[in-house]
Amino acid sequence: MKRRVAVLGATGTVGQRICDLLRDHPWFEVATLTGGASTGMRYGDAVRWLLPSDVPFQDMVVRSSTPEAIEADLVLSALPSGVAKKVEPQFAEAGFPVVSNAGAHRMDPDVPLVVPEVNPEHVRLVEEQRGRRGWGGFIATDPNCSTVNFVLGLRPIQDLFKIKKVVVTTMQAVSGAGYPGVPSLDILGNVIPFIVGEEEKMRRETLKILGRMEGGIVREAGFSVAASCNRVPTVDGHLETIYIEAEERIDLDDVREAFRNFKGEVHGLNLPTSPTDPVILREEEDRPQTRLDSMAGSVPGMSVSVGRVRHGIDDRALQFVVLGHNTIRGAAGCAVTLAELLAAMGYL
Amino acid sequence: MKRRVAVLGATGTVGQRICDLLRDHPWFEVATLTGGASTGMRYGDAVRWLLPSDVPFQDMVVRSSTPEAIEADLVLSALPSGVAKKVEPQFAEAGFPVVSNAGAHRMDPDVPLVVPEVNPEHVRLVEEQRGRRGWGGFIATDPNCSTVNFVLGLRPIQDLFKIKKVVVTTMQAVSGAGYPGVPSLDILGNVIPFIVGEEEKMRRETLKILGRMEGGIVREAGFSVAASCNRVPTVDGHLETIYIEAEERIDLDDVREAFRNFKGEVHGLNLPTSPTDPVILREEEDRPQTRLDSMAGSVPGMSVSVGRVRHGIDDRALQFVVLGHNTIRGAAGCAVTLAELLAAMGYL
Amino acid sequence: MKRRVAVLGATGTVGQRICDLLRDHPWFEVATLTGGASTGMRYGDAVRWLLPSDVPFQDMVVRSSTPEAIEADLVLSALPSGVAKKVEPQFAEAGFPVVSNAGAHRMDPDVPLVVPEVNPEHVRLVEEQRGRRGWGGFIATDPNCSTVNFVLGLRPIQDLFKIKKVVVTTMQAVSGAGYPGVPSLDILGNVIPFIVGEEEKMRRETLKILGRMEGGIVREAGFSVAASCNRVPTVDGHLETIYIEAEERIDLDDVREAFRNFKGEVHGLNLPTSPTDPVILREEEDRPQTRLDSMAGSVPGMSVSVGRVRHGIDDRALQFVVLGHNTIRGAAGCAVTLAELLAAMGYL
Amino acid sequence: MKRRVAVLGATGTVGQRICDLLRDHPWFEVATLTGGASTGMRYGDAVRWLLPSDVPFQDMVVRSSTPEAIEADLVLSALPSGVAKKVEPQFAEAGFPVVSNAGAHRMDPDVPLVVPEVNPEHVRLVEEQRGRRGWGGFIATDPNCSTVNFVLGLRPIQDLFKIKKVVVTTMQAVSGAGYPGVPSLDILGNVIPFIVGEEEKMRRETLKILGRMEGGIVREAGFSVAASCNRVPTVDGHLETIYIEAEERIDLDDVREAFRNFKGEVHGLNLPTSPTDPVILREEEDRPQTRLDSMAGSVPGMSVSVGRVRHGIDDRALQFVVLGHNTIRGAAGCAVTLAELLAAMGYL
Repeated sequence: MKRRVAVLGATGTVGQRICDLLRDHPWFEVATLTGGASTGMRYGDAVRWLLPSDVPFQDMVVRSSTPEAIEADLVLSALPSGVAKKVEPQFAEAGFPVVSNAGAHRMDPDVPLVVPEVNPEHVRLVEEQRGRRGWGGFIATDPNCSTVNFVLGLRPIQDLFKIKKVVVTTMQAVSGAGYPGVPSLDILGNVIPFIVGEEEKMRRETLKILGRMEGGIVREAGFSVAASCNRVPTVDGHLETIYIEAEERIDLDDVREAFRNFKGEVHGLNLPTSPTDPVILREEEDRPQTRLDSMAGSVPGMSVSVGRVRHGIDDRALQFVVLGHNTIRGAAGCAVTLAELLAAMGYL
Repeated sequence: MKRRVAVLGATGTVGQRICDLLRDHPWFEVATLTGGASTGMRYGDAVRWLLPSDVPFQDMVVRSSTPEAIEADLVLSALPSGVAKKVEPQFAEAGFPVVSNAGAHRMDPDVPLVVPEVNPEHVRLVEEQRGRRGWGGFIATDPNCSTVNFVLGLRPIQDLFKIKKVVVTTMQAVSGAGYPGVPSLDILGNVIPFIVGEEEKMRRETLKILGRMEGGIVREAGFSVAASCNRVPTVDGHLETIYIEAEERIDLDDVREAFRNFKGEVHGLNLPTSPTDPVILREEEDRPQTRLDSMAGSVPGMSVSVGRVRHGIDDRALQFVVLGHNTIRGAAGCAVTLAELLAAMGYL
Repeated sequence: MKRRVAVLGATGTVGQRICDLLRDHPWFEVATLTGGASTGMRYGDAVRWLLPSDVPFQDMVVRSSTPEAIEADLVLSALPSGVAKKVEPQFAEAGFPVVSNAGAHRMDPDVPLVVPEVNPEHVRLVEEQRGRRGWGGFIATDPNCSTVNFVLGLRPIQDLFKIKKVVVTTMQAVSGAGYPGVPSLDILGNVIPFIVGEEEKMRRETLKILGRMEGGIVREAGFSVAASCNRVPTVDGHLETIYIEAEERIDLDDVREAFRNFKGEVHGLNLPTSPTDPVILREEEDRPQTRLDSMAGSVPGMSVSVGRVRHGIDDRALQFVVLGHNTIRGAAGCAVTLAELLAAMGYL
Repeated sequence: MKRRVAVLGATGTVGQRICDLLRDHPWFEVATLTGGASTGMRYGDAVRWLLPSDVPFQDMVVRSSTPEAIEADLVLSALPSGVAKKVEPQFAEAGFPVVSNAGAHRMDPDVPLVVPEVNPEHVRLVEEQRGRRGWGGFIATDPNCSTVNFVLGLRPIQDLFKIKKVVVTTMQAVSGAGYPGVPSLDILGNVIPFIVGEEEKMRRETLKILGRMEGGIVREAGFSVAASCNRVPTVDGHLETIYIEAEERIDLDDVREAFRNFKGEVHGLNLPTSPTDPVILREEEDRPQTRLDSMAGSVPGMSVSVGRVRHGIDDRALQFVVLGHNTIRGAAGCAVTLAELLAAMGYL
């Protein structure tokens, strides 16, 4: 029997992607969709559907984002961060497991921030969280879209050498800003070298995700991150150039091997939305490319692609490129996979 | 009386920009235009003009790129690198001063590689060159487009602290690849994380330009450069994110002050195509932007814009953004300014 | 002595263009800027400036859009249509001449709808208007951006033959929708074959503008118009394909001659913002093009370009293309020129 | 047992699409791939693959485009028109059935020009052709990409009323020009109102396709067509605005009904690549859109979408929009479907 899911904020860009991924999910069925201004409308009428596919769940009536309004075994939240800050704890207190894509609670010490293929063991933080807050439910979060790609690019090589610092520059697609998001007058034929809050998020979230569970807490990873985040005129897919310095000499063949062999830390669990190869190594000199490779993977859009593996200023420095689909791998798909992980680990 | 200029390769994208800049030049007049396949045609018929302005010099007959075919006091070369390698020395040997935008001779130890506002004193290398090669003329070069912006961003702060390393990521416009250049199928809605040879050029050219003349040679600058070069769907303007590490603490106010006060090393010479402020500091959090700021400056397109000045991983690291027009500041305008510098210094 | 101008709605995209055009105007000086939410702020702080130029009038304090708040000899209104409907009559009643770019009053029978180079004699409607409404001031309007280009393309040939019908398809730039306007997610790599209200505006406004003043009213032109309006991913410039059927055989040489000779109906008045050639005929088979030709003209952006003149299904049918800058020629510049016309005709 | 197919010109953009569609085709298997300069190379090395999918048939060796070099039951030709003119008759003479996407032979009176869902009965022209030319094989062609969409939009309503004339404006994607095709410098942020030969092709091909087989020849349809063809910065999908005049009053409900009910003239044959609904009617006021709807259909990219059904200048005039994927529906997919039709009708 499938678990019943409520999607909070189902009309937004991430909410739409979640609904799209849950159309025929083997473990979950969508039981409730919630919205803000559109409460009471048919989902088919309420949503401005932005994907090429047909609108799913058209005849469901959009409910308000309150615990009383929904029936579900778990809650997937695509709420705006400001709303999530207030609403998600209400759901957790009311006993719901909440998997959130919002930024509101990611950095709370007792809230897991998880990319299942990267740091699944962090979900155990929910025990700490429940104990401390006295909740029947809990909140588990996935990271910001540019962070997801970033940590998937770093995880396979994290244990190869001791990372000292990482300098990253992102070229992010407009879908990352939601809808209506970036005005076309701002981005056509343009690059905007600033995304509010993004660089700090990439730094802090990455160190938490790549940190280690010790006792009931996460010890942050011990390296430095400097990010430069840019908006470019692409639709889907965040491409990132990465420069890493290590304590020791880096063997490029080891790096390529590690990328090739990476199956993710949840490999044995057969999570339906986690792809066979969470990281795909491209050998061509001009790949990955945003338009060609964003939908890569056995679950389309769920694998990140890496390429252009080479040394930096010397052989203790490594450079490469990582690309991932920002609303699938970087948001909706990551949240769904996290829900699957929680199911597989018995937390639902 | 104006000096007579021959523009070699006048039908290409850089050749067109040079012609556009020399329409009403106070010091130079265009006497000859040369081409390849279009030799013998009217320039107005031979050129596929890509700028919004009218075609200048329409009735001039395109000549072949050989010393015998031209009459001129100096030669501005916008030839493809392969052709330039063979042809430019022939002109220099025949007594012509050659200012070249081609990559062929930039790294020759006795050939000056000059951005006038950055390293004008390097032009003295031509004396070495003439002596060594026994030429009546000489070759002086300007750098690759992404290098020009880069060194203009670095020069104002080069003496503030000791630079150890620079990590740079570029987002380069399609006009940088010439015409027909990048196929639209490759770049619409896309980012291509590779430009052949570009990263190595940025490294080597930068160290030469920011090096010091000592005796008759240039001593390369003593820091490291790691570049990641990307093509993005913009028309004109290369935007670059820069990360610098220094030996010592960097004061951001000093950096901003240095950018604001930089007048270029040729300030007193009143070169007509060199702008009042070769570097413009933007204080807004989301500037410079490619489409809005590429034409900045008292000579449109000749100033680079910098912005987002901030620390990197700690206060010995600096991050900022630099943007410049790639075919004006980064190519044609730089070549014209170099010709002006040579004139002002008595080398013509 | 210059006339003092108040710009209503000065922070919007059209308001910005008006301010840009009035920087150093020989007849007008900007005395007041008004806004909505930004009332009380410095203009430099209030406006999100979207043009490559510097913000003019930065230190003016934005006032509210009410007659009491301003001192001026005339009012240029770039207000949203809904606001204009209520506010503009208040200004006219208070004695101000109002030149409006808004759609609210264009189709009122006693309100002139004027492109100065096309139908300057229609401004005499203001006499009717004042008489009928008892106003000290008046309202004069310019048309929708796609209409301006359209009627400038039709006017030179209107008297060559008897037009029966016109079928027009537009490809309109995103700046025509204001700011924030079209979300980038909607338009990147896309065509949207619908712009709300635009097709009907093109039909009705065109017939009024190309109609004849008879007695105190405008008799609509006697042909039919069918429009298809599309949004395409360009920044500035509306390109339109036009198909015309006439009662009689059309001579293409006559058409080209008429385009070449058209100087506009205000030629003798030397309006500062009206270009020498309001219509520029391109002979190349692939021109005009949006990015190359939108800024054409002796006053940049004020001339429309026509091209691809050819027969349609037979020699009574004519096809051609017209392109014009939508926020300059099609909005701000048209309003400024209309104000100039009113000044020249003694209505201010 | 599957029929063996040779794909001529397999490395080009249309050739790639054909290979992509034939990966797992139920009736056909790819036996030979041919190329020009790449003869002798592995297909995986020879092709610059432009689709997001993996390269199929990577280890096949590319052969030359000559009858002796191939073994196949039929030939699918994606050759450039100049090459096709000479080569295709050689294959037909050598006994091969040739299905060609090239323009070379489309207008030959004894060569069928077929969109299977529109005019399948025209394939009988091959009998005439064989008789007249004494060939063992034959040539059958599909139309130009913008024509395919056009006739699919017209066919469902062709019998509802007597069409007098059609005025069409296209907004065509860059993939229609092949690779490298349109230089990015020409099309970024631009519209080019000209595509060489396209308008005449749309006229002539449409009248042939919508004509009637009578005796052994095709009698052209009896209406007029005037086309304006434009290149816009989209990747895939040609959008066309259509204006039709009829002899009699047009009922819009009849039109919508006809679009909704159209199953294509090959409905009963169950051609694997022909979609359930060759035409999809969109009821929203702003659909179809290029990026959202190009991949519509039960066979992705094989259905065209129509929308914005409305009257034109009066109720004898009809306007609507049609959109189709230019390299699938408009080229490769149409050729494959035509091959399927020939198989189903016993011509292979």
